[in-house]
Amino acid sequence: MKTLDRRPGGRTARVRAQVFDAVRAELAAHGHEGLTMEGVATRAGVHRATVYRRWRDVGGLLVDLIDTAGEIEWQPPDTGSLRGDLAALNQEIQESLVLEPSFAVALIVASFHSEQAARAQTRLWAARYAQCEILVERAFACGELPTPHTDARILLITAMAPLYHQMVLLRADPDPRLPERAAEAAYLAAVAGAFSVRHEESARSRHS
Amino acid sequence: MKTLDRRPGGRTARVRAQVFDAVRAELAAHGHEGLTMEGVATRAGVHRATVYRRWRDVGGLLVDLIDTAGEIEWQPPDTGSLRGDLAALNQEIQESLVLEPSFAVALIVASFHSEQAARAQTRLWAARYAQCEILVERAFACGELPTPHTDARILLITAMAPLYHQMVLLRADPDPRLPERAAEAAYLAAVAGAFSVRHEESARSRHS
Repeated sequence: MKTLDRRPGGRTARVRAQVFDAVRAELAAHGHEGLTMEGVATRAGVHRATVYRRWRDVGGLLVDLIDTAGEIEWQPPDTGSLRGDLAALNQEIQESLVLEPSFAVALIVASFHSEQAARAQTRLWAARYAQCEILVERAFACGELPTPHTDARILLITAMAPLYHQMVLLRADPDPRLPERAAEAAYLAAVAGAFSVRHEESARSRHS
Repeated sequence: MKTLDRRPGGRTARVRAQVFDAVRAELAAHGHEGLTMEGVATRAGVHRATVYRRWRDVGGLLVDLIDTAGEIEWQPPDTGSLRGDLAALNQEIQESLVLEPSFAVALIVASFHSEQAARAQTRLWAARYAQCEILVERAFACGELPTPHTDARILLITAMAPLYHQMVLLRADPDPRLPERAAEAAYLAAVAGAFSVRHEESARSRHS
């Protein structure tokens, strides 16, 4: 142990990789419900005490995984139109939700049991929404949207929420047309001005 | 016990009422995580064996509560316009989600841990969507919607999903304008034809 501890970077990185692999494998084998600190430690071949000390609970493990996912170089789609971008985004989401096991669903479930996981998930999604603001800016620039004052966050949530609703909350079978239909609905609503920020509000936010 | 068992209807109904009261109180006191069969039995003053025999697990308890909620005479709003009906529906949903503790949120959380609860929740929501088809029929009849071939379920999900997304998944603070904004977006998308069922599809469903 002492020898290993002399190379903390190497050992830390290796333990982390082993533990993350074990989390994925345990999820695949036992689903969200079967994910335990003990199961992860055993599968990873790492001392339970190490896993508890570093991650505290399953929520802590998932937080670290979420944050790692957040570090991945992710770029919003650029298909040439807002409608296409939203559909591509929804396609990505649907794919992440149909995986068996779905890591995305496991994070949602964990978020109900761990304040830490809930905060990390909210942070990750906020970052994604912020990255997607460019979609709205491009759509205004190329004349797809009538006004620059479009609330990108609520537009994105309107486009994506039906997928989570159908697949995560209602456990519906995946509908291959849903990503496009939900994107289309949000796009048409945006064009009709549903997400436009009233002038005084946008003035207020510029000054706050 | 024998004496009580001679009046099974009366005793059953009383035990059920006591247990349901206890579920609500335990949720209020300890949240979703603190809801246990033991806690419910103790608070209700009912033998644990009775609670386990009748409801099996927390999921079973919530199923029975969901089904009871489903029996409640619920009518979709009738405000005189589709836009208003959707906003009223969303207002109801937002109110159920902001309650502390939110019984609606507890059901969602339980649905991830109990197949029974998940199925019951899906059944309850399917019944509500079916009841809300009248909104779409009325909107076509009074000229608000351009076509009778509107998929009511996806329209309703588009209207409601952003509320669940924001409040249940993203833990955002309730936005008092969201019920109306999300309803408005779904309404504008519907008017633009986003939820229209293609002719061949509606013909197919009529013949199947």
